[in-house]
Amino acid sequence: MNTIKTYIKKHKQRFIDELIEILKFPSISANSDYKKDVLITADFVLESLKKAGCDIVEMCETPGYPIIYGEKIIDKNLPTVLVYGHYDVQPADPIELWTSPPFEPVIKKTAIHPEGAIFARGACDDKGQMYMHIKALEYMTSTNNLPCNVKFMIEGEEEIGSESLAWFVPRNIEKLVNDVILISDTGMIANDIPSITTGLRGLSYVEVEVTGPNRDLHSGLYGGAVANPINILTKMIASLHDENNHITIPGFYDNVEELSTEERAEMAKAPFSLENYKDALKIEDVYGEKGYATNERNAIRPTLDVNGIWGGYTGEGAKTVIASKAYAKISMRLVPNQDWKQITQLFKKHFESIAPKAVSVKVIPHHGGQGYVTPIDTIAYKAASKAYETSFGKTPIPQRSGGSIPIVALFEEHLKSKTILMGFGLDSDAIHSPNEHFGIWNYLKGIETIPYFYKYFTELNATK
Amino acid sequence: MNTIKTYIKKHKQRFIDELIEILKFPSISANSDYKKDVLITADFVLESLKKAGCDIVEMCETPGYPIIYGEKIIDKNLPTVLVYGHYDVQPADPIELWTSPPFEPVIKKTAIHPEGAIFARGACDDKGQMYMHIKALEYMTSTNNLPCNVKFMIEGEEEIGSESLAWFVPRNIEKLVNDVILISDTGMIANDIPSITTGLRGLSYVEVEVTGPNRDLHSGLYGGAVANPINILTKMIASLHDENNHITIPGFYDNVEELSTEERAEMAKAPFSLENYKDALKIEDVYGEKGYATNERNAIRPTLDVNGIWGGYTGEGAKTVIASKAYAKISMRLVPNQDWKQITQLFKKHFESIAPKAVSVKVIPHHGGQGYVTPIDTIAYKAASKAYETSFGKTPIPQRSGGSIPIVALFEEHLKSKTILMGFGLDSDAIHSPNEHFGIWNYLKGIETIPYFYKYFTELNATK
Repeated sequence: MNTIKTYIKKHKQRFIDELIEILKFPSISANSDYKKDVLITADFVLESLKKAGCDIVEMCETPGYPIIYGEKIIDKNLPTVLVYGHYDVQPADPIELWTSPPFEPVIKKTAIHPEGAIFARGACDDKGQMYMHIKALEYMTSTNNLPCNVKFMIEGEEEIGSESLAWFVPRNIEKLVNDVILISDTGMIANDIPSITTGLRGLSYVEVEVTGPNRDLHSGLYGGAVANPINILTKMIASLHDENNHITIPGFYDNVEELSTEERAEMAKAPFSLENYKDALKIEDVYGEKGYATNERNAIRPTLDVNGIWGGYTGEGAKTVIASKAYAKISMRLVPNQDWKQITQLFKKHFESIAPKAVSVKVIPHHGGQGYVTPIDTIAYKAASKAYETSFGKTPIPQRSGGSIPIVALFEEHLKSKTILMGFGLDSDAIHSPNEHFGIWNYLKGIETIPYFYKYFTELNATK
Repeated sequence: MNTIKTYIKKHKQRFIDELIEILKFPSISANSDYKKDVLITADFVLESLKKAGCDIVEMCETPGYPIIYGEKIIDKNLPTVLVYGHYDVQPADPIELWTSPPFEPVIKKTAIHPEGAIFARGACDDKGQMYMHIKALEYMTSTNNLPCNVKFMIEGEEEIGSESLAWFVPRNIEKLVNDVILISDTGMIANDIPSITTGLRGLSYVEVEVTGPNRDLHSGLYGGAVANPINILTKMIASLHDENNHITIPGFYDNVEELSTEERAEMAKAPFSLENYKDALKIEDVYGEKGYATNERNAIRPTLDVNGIWGGYTGEGAKTVIASKAYAKISMRLVPNQDWKQITQLFKKHFESIAPKAVSVKVIPHHGGQGYVTPIDTIAYKAASKAYETSFGKTPIPQRSGGSIPIVALFEEHLKSKTILMGFGLDSDAIHSPNEHFGIWNYLKGIETIPYFYKYFTELNATK
């Protein structure tokens, strides 16, 4: 396995070129206009797994986009790693803020990525990080270094809630049997501070619609006498937080895990500069729940954010109208023990209850998922930690992330196995934002680290 | 002048056809994409005035869209009526709610308009009502029934704040000298309850922009730790009304004219059915300032309405993003004595002051205008009232309207003359909304009534 560095050096340009190829497909699962592109991307992944050495590859049909399955079983007595990733990407809006087109990948140097980073939608989330695993497999199979069995399950609906995966997993438990699930769809603190994500937040995503009069009205003739759905919507949304930025939905905090003073003190040790944070975002001040620090607010505390709002006249100039309807997309990030389905119901009930009689309200649940905390005393975590030590020369820091990968809880429920989140992206990679990118150094470092995980995981299992 | 009914009967189809012609031009002043169409409409108006008998017609250049001037002076010793109207229209959004295309006029029968109504953007506001005056002029000149002098001033920026008119009027005071200004850009209570608008609200229209982080962020990684501009915007807007729906901007009510109990009792006598009102709008309840009835809220009280709001992801599906920016268009309807420029400043100062440090706020004033109350003891009002009595067989009710025609106050300031608002539209005509229309009966009734105003105004002036 000490040949990995040489192998990467030799194939570096091809690894980059292949990633650029897959990044050219606008595989936006949220928008059905891109259906063809999502399916082309699925094909690409299937072919890549075949070329990388899988003995079996399958395009598994689902009610939605297909799930790509691949496997290489070398010995039934050896442990099995199940790699999960996704080939779909977030929409690219607002498109006008991209400095290069989102689906025409280019390599640019940045302060954080002096060796260059690939700029494209999905570069980091998750095509780049998913493809690292395929290239790590290629190395292990072509150099006879694969120490255990491996399965791949790459889906196409992660960005829209993984509904087809939730359908697929319980129907394919035998096929998916494994000893550990390995995912690269998170980040690390910095290139010189490797970290492993040990906690994820859950998610409840809803859309709300407030309807006032049956048609748009002239704001002069009706203004002041009729409920304006936009004004009402702002009032309703504003009331979801109190003056301390606590969420006001009754029962919302009932199951929230409260960390001990010791745990919070431990978290506070993670390197973090509030000044750098504010400076990177060009904000005068942070903002959030009273009584919690910034990296508690975005990791161990639940949140409620409006992700989109619209209604009335939004074009150039002025239109004096009272809109008939106003809309918002709202997501809540949840912490372990909060059940997303229950929270969605609590939201719906509360939101409907606070609507004045002068309007009607619809709450449409979009999708959601449970939060997750991974233990750090397992063989899998120890193997991952050793892998980072070998490739980075440093012990990774266990870290809670504010993001959500709802399927992690789903895997635990059905497949009864733990997940290791080995993420190689950085916060500044702008995932879900314009100008998403992924450092070439990070891409190659991921490919280098992954085979060590297989090695140590197999060794530690053998000696347990 | 008793030939007017016969004349209308004879030329009815041509009158309708000509209006349909002008309604085909999408003269949307708010959107520069339609510049050519606005200019074509200006030409059409100019030609129509020439054909209707004006001796002089001029396309008057301004910093914006041209103002069409026309005149027929028959005797310098006779009084002069100045007709004002506008040839621009509101945007047609939301276009998908129109049952026929907004710029392909069609005649359809409705419950309120059994003789048919022309459906098109601008049918009532203001092309239809403006064109009534041109056809009334045609009648008077072609049948030798014009009893006094007449001037026309038709502008193309009413829907975006009449900035060029505000530039033009003080520069052309001599040209515009008149004894009364006549405008049809308002409505009446019902076809069997004629009314004359005697009060208008003022207007202050602003756009606000709230900026948080310098780019869109992943709502999982940053949610809860960074001010979300949409959440903040909803909080800021919501705080502009208190629990009684009073506006909270300091100083906002300082100059508001408070009506006496007697005046309010007089207003309450106007025919109004709350049940019909709610039923027409399909709302369970009305909504507004505590302590005031519905037709006080939309006439004698100032308001604050959001006319448009947008930010974040508004496409299909879900995107877990914290937007960098959120926007709203907000208008305030003002009552007489509230100065719109001062109110705009009060809004700006207050809105900036309530922004938390974690965001930055921009307030961009769009346009505005003063409110207006017209006295009912003048020759002009009496002439108008008599004209309605002749054509409708009923005395019109003087009525305050919630709408704004900011230029009325401008005219009084520079031209020192009073304005008579003879509106023939109905509330249900859906001006500024999808499916705007104008009853054929109303259109022809307007053409019939206008010449009587000229007649009585001339006669009453002669005997004063």
